[in-house]
Amino acid sequence: MKKYCFGIDVGGTTVKCGLFQIDGTLVDKWEIPTNTEEEGSKILPDIAHTINNKISEKQIDKEEVAGIGLGVPGPVDCDGVVLIAVNLKWGRKDVAKELSDLTGIPVQAGNDANVAALGEMWKGGGEGTKNLILVTLGTGVGGGIIVNGKIISGSHGAGGEIGHAPIALDIEDTCNCGNKGCLELVASATGIVRLANRALNKDQETKTVLREQNLSAKAVFDAYKQDDLMAKAIIEEFAEYLGIALANYTVVVDPEIIVLGGGVSKAGEVLTQVVQKAFDQYAVCFCKGTPIVLAKLGNDAGIYGAARMVLD
Amino acid sequence: MKKYCFGIDVGGTTVKCGLFQIDGTLVDKWEIPTNTEEEGSKILPDIAHTINNKISEKQIDKEEVAGIGLGVPGPVDCDGVVLIAVNLKWGRKDVAKELSDLTGIPVQAGNDANVAALGEMWKGGGEGTKNLILVTLGTGVGGGIIVNGKIISGSHGAGGEIGHAPIALDIEDTCNCGNKGCLELVASATGIVRLANRALNKDQETKTVLREQNLSAKAVFDAYKQDDLMAKAIIEEFAEYLGIALANYTVVVDPEIIVLGGGVSKAGEVLTQVVQKAFDQYAVCFCKGTPIVLAKLGNDAGIYGAARMVLD
Repeated sequence: MKKYCFGIDVGGTTVKCGLFQIDGTLVDKWEIPTNTEEEGSKILPDIAHTINNKISEKQIDKEEVAGIGLGVPGPVDCDGVVLIAVNLKWGRKDVAKELSDLTGIPVQAGNDANVAALGEMWKGGGEGTKNLILVTLGTGVGGGIIVNGKIISGSHGAGGEIGHAPIALDIEDTCNCGNKGCLELVASATGIVRLANRALNKDQETKTVLREQNLSAKAVFDAYKQDDLMAKAIIEEFAEYLGIALANYTVVVDPEIIVLGGGVSKAGEVLTQVVQKAFDQYAVCFCKGTPIVLAKLGNDAGIYGAARMVLD
Repeated sequence: MKKYCFGIDVGGTTVKCGLFQIDGTLVDKWEIPTNTEEEGSKILPDIAHTINNKISEKQIDKEEVAGIGLGVPGPVDCDGVVLIAVNLKWGRKDVAKELSDLTGIPVQAGNDANVAALGEMWKGGGEGTKNLILVTLGTGVGGGIIVNGKIISGSHGAGGEIGHAPIALDIEDTCNCGNKGCLELVASATGIVRLANRALNKDQETKTVLREQNLSAKAVFDAYKQDDLMAKAIIEEFAEYLGIALANYTVVVDPEIIVLGGGVSKAGEVLTQVVQKAFDQYAVCFCKGTPIVLAKLGNDAGIYGAARMVLD
């Protein structure tokens, strides 16, 4: 009888760990440091060690554990093989098999952003749905696509790499990925600052609080909430890019719901309102009104989604 | 022991029918007229009648028939319910149940463009793959998305409605769907003529055979093959829009292969070459080089895909 599952979210500095009941109740949550020495070869043994310790501490029978889900910061193919994870110093690595060998427990692995999408579907902003797009608006833009309750990992592990959709083709800067026009250049926190700088340079007349402070995505949203005209123009421009991008994704997978997460989503309902308006303008008729909502799980989305992976 | 399946592709004027062995061998192919009288209420009985006749004619035991797959020109939800099919005068209609009741055989239904994508995966340009995007470049632009061998029908039946991706936002005309900027406005046969007219109006100097004849997508591709400079610029512009669109879809589902079908694909390898070049420029690094190939099944893709639907 399976009662528990583990959700592990491997980051470049810490590994977030969660022990869950299979109904999604979080039993315990803790972190260990990510040891990237020796080509990251200690990361999986450290994870096995902390899981075995937790099993002993909680007096759980291994037979009661449905599995361990692992979110990894890099592309992961549909067999759970990591193709590369630069921040962990991993090349191609069959993490599912290795961690399973170390623990004697079945393991599923997925890309961290995709796994977070599954978490938001299970117990977050998309709870009750089986088809969603998660867009994580942070330093960069990440995302995950869930269809019929399953992550779309893609043929090259690039499923849900929506930060690199060519949407902002009028932006001259090159993306970190080497391409031009990536959504990330305008819809991330740094992207909003990019749009703000462009707007402030172009229009040096309009009075705005944004000239009086250090620019940040938060500062622009704060000014937007204060009806600052310049901030309004910047946020509407950001929303236009993101709404067009979402309308493009929607004709591909037609989700039930779109969930916005990441640091930028701390702006709250003003974010979803302005993006919803732009999205509804561009979305194909069947999809206009697809709800755009805020993520709920914050940094825990990864452990929730990782745990959920092993429950199919 | 299941040996056979039927693939039925319902169009506005004819119903294409195919009897297949379950290995994909086409045993027989025929057509019946689509009778749209009385709100299209005769269509499914006519289909049941022709299937029953074929079963008698071929002396097949109904127990040997795995099922009937039905492609319908309209959105179909994941339960096989047609939401609307204007050309058949159907509103919401549970076609899978109705045809199953009429024949005593299990029925699966899907959107015709999505079903064609499954056909191209099974026995067409994408044979041997399980993840593909089919783009049908005809009078309009349609498409279908296959992930892990299954059609993505979407939450509102809009999965694969890629003709309505907002990509061509510099085009002033409004799409038939009511939106601006739809890919269909520039990547369909009529879209190529639109781009040609725009180019010819803008540049009245450059010598080109295109001024001397009736404009059509075929005429532009023919001139392109003859190294006509104006045609080259038009086709490259078309390819740029389509390449950007495909790069957007690719970050969502990351297919193994992209298949181009429809009347425009009769242009042949020059089409896939020019689109591949544009796609590779805009695609996220993991997906650059994803093969773009021609569809192989032509008008039979629908019956192949419909038949394939019932074999899971």
